[in-house]
This record gives sequence, structure tokens and C-alpha cells, in this order.
Amino acid sequence: MLFSDYFPVWNQLTSFQQQKISNALISRQVEKGTLIHNGSMDCTGLLLIKSGQLRAYILSEEGREITIYRLFERDLCLFSASCIMRSIQFELMIKAEKDTEFFMIPAEIYKQVMEESAPVANYTNEVMATRFSEVMWLIEQIMWKSFDKRLAAFLLEESAIEQTTQLKLTHEIIANHLGTHREVVTRMLRYFQSEDMVKLSRGAIEITDKTHLELLLVHSTGSR
Amino acid sequence: MLFSDYFPVWNQLTSFQQQKISNALISRQVEKGTLIHNGSMDCTGLLLIKSGQLRAYILSEEGREITIYRLFERDLCLFSASCIMRSIQFELMIKAEKDTEFFMIPAEIYKQVMEESAPVANYTNEVMATRFSEVMWLIEQIMWKSFDKRLAAFLLEESAIEQTTQLKLTHEIIANHLGTHREVVTRMLRYFQSEDMVKLSRGAIEITDKTHLELLLVHSTGSR
Repeated sequence: MLFSDYFPVWNQLTSFQQQKISNALISRQVEKGTLIHNGSMDCTGLLLIKSGQLRAYILSEEGREITIYRLFERDLCLFSASCIMRSIQFELMIKAEKDTEFFMIPAEIYKQVMEESAPVANYTNEVMATRFSEVMWLIEQIMWKSFDKRLAAFLLEESAIEQTTQLKLTHEIIANHLGTHREVVTRMLRYFQSEDMVKLSRGAIEITDKTHLELLLVHSTGSR
Repeated sequence: MLFSDYFPVWNQLTSFQQQKISNALISRQVEKGTLIHNGSMDCTGLLLIKSGQLRAYILSEEGREITIYRLFERDLCLFSASCIMRSIQFELMIKAEKDTEFFMIPAEIYKQVMEESAPVANYTNEVMATRFSEVMWLIEQIMWKSFDKRLAAFLLEESAIEQTTQLKLTHEIIANHLGTHREVVTRMLRYFQSEDMVKLSRGAIEITDKTHLELLLVHSTGSR
């Protein structure tokens, strides 16, 4: 599998630029759970995902987490190279949610190419706009959606990603995705169970009534 | 006042590109309260602010608002031309908070120049990264900060912008900035008043103890 197949504007680079990137390119494999990027403390480089799954999240001072977005095959991870733009002023953590293979372009090399190549700069713009849209979606969720909807949406999303109704997820992990406390997740899951939408067991959640969960999403109950 | 003085990469444009922008440039003046951009329904163009103040916010289905960021003199407003990037998939409203003068570059013209000019594309990237950082800051506020801190921060910010301790703000307006209900604002302001931090009167809030409000920001009380 070649980098050029994954990088959409490859053919718009000069051969010198192509060479420059090819020479600097690193292939890496990390295990599930690896912390790939730790806020502004490192400027790892841009990642182009070959296979696997990454999770971008932020941490509160007290160590609470909330998932900002996720990255899948063919996605470009920009903020692992936050030093390429001085205006990126936030601390994002990036962790492998599954065993993940990716190409890494060193930040300095990407920056040099981006500065002289309009196609690369415009492609980077589109990537950032995509993340921006995801973050705006998240704000809408946090602000206007009640927690039952957010939890239902998360379970359905997980089910779609994993292509199973048997989710191996602890309440703690869900709390870290949604930026809340474990107790809040447990309480709502028990309510879902009492309504026969899910079945709970140790370290796992089975979705037993997908339609009911989906209905929850469209119902317009009061938000906070 | 010339556009070229405000646009940082002007000197990196070809004279053809400079001409193209100059010919298309529109100077506009709007009154306080004017809705300049209404979600994806229009693609007004990029705005470069000469004087005044704009507010970018989102709306819930029920008509609730939350301020995403504000724009001041010399800021470039990108999302009023969201059609320049197909990955911008969110509905932002932009309204004048004060009488505002700005240059408008039609979206199509800007897009054409950006597609061929690496400096313009990279500048646009930096502008988007700046907004992105503001949005990430907002998420942190919403997620980890208790409402007393968010309200204190907002009052101090307003006071800094207006350079006065006499704020002409209704509780409704504050609620729309912070994405909450008027009652919540009123309750907290009354608490602030009982602690002698502010003095409330009809349509106005006087900051009487700035230091106390600032202390609130650094105090690490529990968040929600």
C-alpha cells in the first residue's frame, strides 16, 4: 500500500516535493492503547492512517476526558503536528483505540511543502474544516442534547463502527468518551435496560432494541 | 484605510491576483444588530473588519443561542463564506454587536485566489486554526468549568472590551452568549451581588469588585 494512494493531492506535487516527502516518510505500527500524541508537548508529525482507529480527546485538570473526534482508515491526523501552525493553541491527546498502522510525515517536512504548495495547503484546509465541523457538532450535542440522547447516539455509533450489537465497553470508558462521570453513565444504562433497549453484563453492553435507541435520538425532549 | 494594510499576505499576491481582489472588493457598513450571515443559507463572502465587532453564534432548534467567538478590528471572518470549503458543515450565525465597517471579498473570488496561492491558503489555515483554538477553549469551558466561573469570565471579558465597569447587558443577552437560560443568569448574578462583586440595576450590571471576580476564575471548585 503506497502513501501516494492515500494522499489525495499527491499528483499535484512537484517531483521534488514528492521526493522530499517520500524520503522522510516513516511507517509505524502501534498497539491499541498507545498514546501517540500528548498535547503541545510533542510535535510528532502528520499521521495518515492505513488501518486501525485513533481517538482525539482533551483532558481536564482533574483528569476527566472527552472525545473530540475519531480517525479511521485514510484519515489525516493534523493536530499531532500542531507545531505546523502557530495558531493551534490547544492541547489534544491522541491515542490508538485499536492496533493501528500509519504513515508519519515529520512536521517540519510537511510544513515546508505546505508553505510552497497551494494544493497541499488547500487540502490541509479541508482536513481542518472537517475536524472543525466535528467539533461544532460536539458543541451542539453538549449544549442542546440531553444525556440520554448523547448516550444512545454513542452506543449506536460504536455498534456501527464495530459492526456488532455486543459492545465491549466499561461504563468508565463511555464516561471518558462523553466527558461525564461513570455514575451518570451507569444510571442511564440501567434506565435503558429497564426499558429493554440494552442488556448489561460485566464489561459489556448488548443492544437489544436498536430501533428504540434510534427513536430516542429524534424525540424532542427537553435539554438542559 | 486600504485593504492591503489589513490583509497580511497582500504583498505575496501577484499583481493579477491583487487586481482581481481589488476589483471585487466591497466596502460595507452595518448597524448594530444586523444579521450578516445566516448559516449555510447564504455564502456572503469573507469579511475583513475595519471597525466594530461581530459575534458568531449557533442556534438550537428551540432558538437558544451560544456565542462561539467574537471578531474585532483586523479580524478575518471566514465562515461567512463557508461555501469556499466543502468540508465546512455547520450552521453559524454572524451578527453585528456594534456598528461595524468591513471589506467584503466575494466568496468565489477569494476561493479562486486561494486555490492558486499558497500564501493565501496558508493564511486562511492560520485563521481557521485561530477559530479552532477558540472553539476548543469553549468546549473546555462548557465541560469543565462551573457556571459561576463562566459568568465571571464573561463579565470580565465584556468589561475589558468595553473598557468600563458599567456593563449595559440584560440577563437575556448574557444567557444567549453563554448558552443557558435567563433564570440561571439571574440567579448567579444575584449571588454575585450578595457577595458584593456586582451591583445590579435595570438593564445594567456594575462590576464593583473586579479582584473578587478574578479570584473566582482561579479557584478550583467542582465542575459539573
